[in-house]
Amino acid sequence: MQKPAFCRAENRFVAEGVKLCLDAAGSGLAMETVYYTYKAEKRWPQLLELPCEQLRISEPVAEKLSGQKTPQGVFAVCRMPEFGLAEADPAGRYIALEDVQDPANVGAVLRSAAAFGFSGAILTPGCADPFGQKVLRASMGAVFKLPVFETADLAGELRRLGAQGAQTLAAALRGAQDLREIRRSGGGLALAVGNEGNGLSAEVIAACSAVVRIPIRAMESLNAAVAASVLMWELGGRRDG
Amino acid sequence: MQKPAFCRAENRFVAEGVKLCLDAAGSGLAMETVYYTYKAEKRWPQLLELPCEQLRISEPVAEKLSGQKTPQGVFAVCRMPEFGLAEADPAGRYIALEDVQDPANVGAVLRSAAAFGFSGAILTPGCADPFGQKVLRASMGAVFKLPVFETADLAGELRRLGAQGAQTLAAALRGAQDLREIRRSGGGLALAVGNEGNGLSAEVIAACSAVVRIPIRAMESLNAAVAASVLMWELGGRRDG
Repeated sequence: MQKPAFCRAENRFVAEGVKLCLDAAGSGLAMETVYYTYKAEKRWPQLLELPCEQLRISEPVAEKLSGQKTPQGVFAVCRMPEFGLAEADPAGRYIALEDVQDPANVGAVLRSAAAFGFSGAILTPGCADPFGQKVLRASMGAVFKLPVFETADLAGELRRLGAQGAQTLAAALRGAQDLREIRRSGGGLALAVGNEGNGLSAEVIAACSAVVRIPIRAMESLNAAVAASVLMWELGGRRDG
Repeated sequence: MQKPAFCRAENRFVAEGVKLCLDAAGSGLAMETVYYTYKAEKRWPQLLELPCEQLRISEPVAEKLSGQKTPQGVFAVCRMPEFGLAEADPAGRYIALEDVQDPANVGAVLRSAAAFGFSGAILTPGCADPFGQKVLRASMGAVFKLPVFETADLAGELRRLGAQGAQTLAAALRGAQDLREIRRSGGGLALAVGNEGNGLSAEVIAACSAVVRIPIRAMESLNAAVAASVLMWELGGRRDG
């Protein structure tokens, strides 16, 4: 149970809490070790059935390890699923996030993407770590169900998907096209949403085939996770949810 | 600049940061005192023009007062807008939140409600304080533009609005009606969304004329702010945004 940076380098992540741990195991992810307290074992005897190494920990250790105020005393070290961007299917539907920093926003977007039947998420390194504790928690385990790709060249990836026939849309406050007027091409889709304060970079906007805006009034903008989710609902979930 | 509970009792709240303070002043809210540091005054000379008492504070005081990691050194004490639920217009569109506890969720919902042209928000006392620092920040000042009503009897309010002709919809994971099948009655609308973990109470669900679900797959639920925003988009913003 090492520091996040070490975990990343080793392609491991830590899931905390009984629901996330059971979800991770249920999703077929390779789980290496599950750690639980005596209390947790009594409360959730199904932990004993997890097909991996099991280690009992004391309450003080659980408190030390936990990122929660009231820890459940259950942790699992899992191997990260490995996706390469070469695997992203140009006929699929993707949500791309550029430097979305708030873990609650990244988690909520991944949760919506899985719920609205998207094929995956593409994140830049400036986004909150999708396997960090806060994102895992906010995503309610969506990362166990949704492929998450990381790329330092989001503009290049969008151009590649576009060249292979995907419709690539950049979300911007002053986008040329009203969301309600977007006609889906019938092929793949990549929707790009930018940083909370600054939106998408000019480079990513230029890499997309169209720039879309959600029609709003009174406010300057929506919360980033809300904006991404309304776009995904309108262009995905709404049509075939 | 007192503790939140004192502020509430006195019908005052504190806005922090230059954008929120200027938004509050611009919205016509009664501002009593603005506090700023020497640095803030040099950086934002428009603070000097605010029509209220002005007080210079030192950097250490600003740091002590601030809820932020990097305070801007600008604070304003404002009078809370006073709304009574008797004023809620049965021909208007309302989002009702029952015990939504996360301030980021409450803030994002208020922001979406203002952006999608809703008439107001109805909150139970179990919701995060709409005039607390975290909600103010997450709402991007939406509370200055959107009437926020509080009621301990949400079911009663929904029944009252329904009796006066409003369409009252409860959001639930296993709602009988798919969101896409909802026909608007043409009159007022009240949409109720519940607590992050438990959803709406049976009492509030029973007070509504229909129970609606957002069609999703793979996940058990959406983030509460996302769910409320998708509902508001579909039944409000999308139709006349």
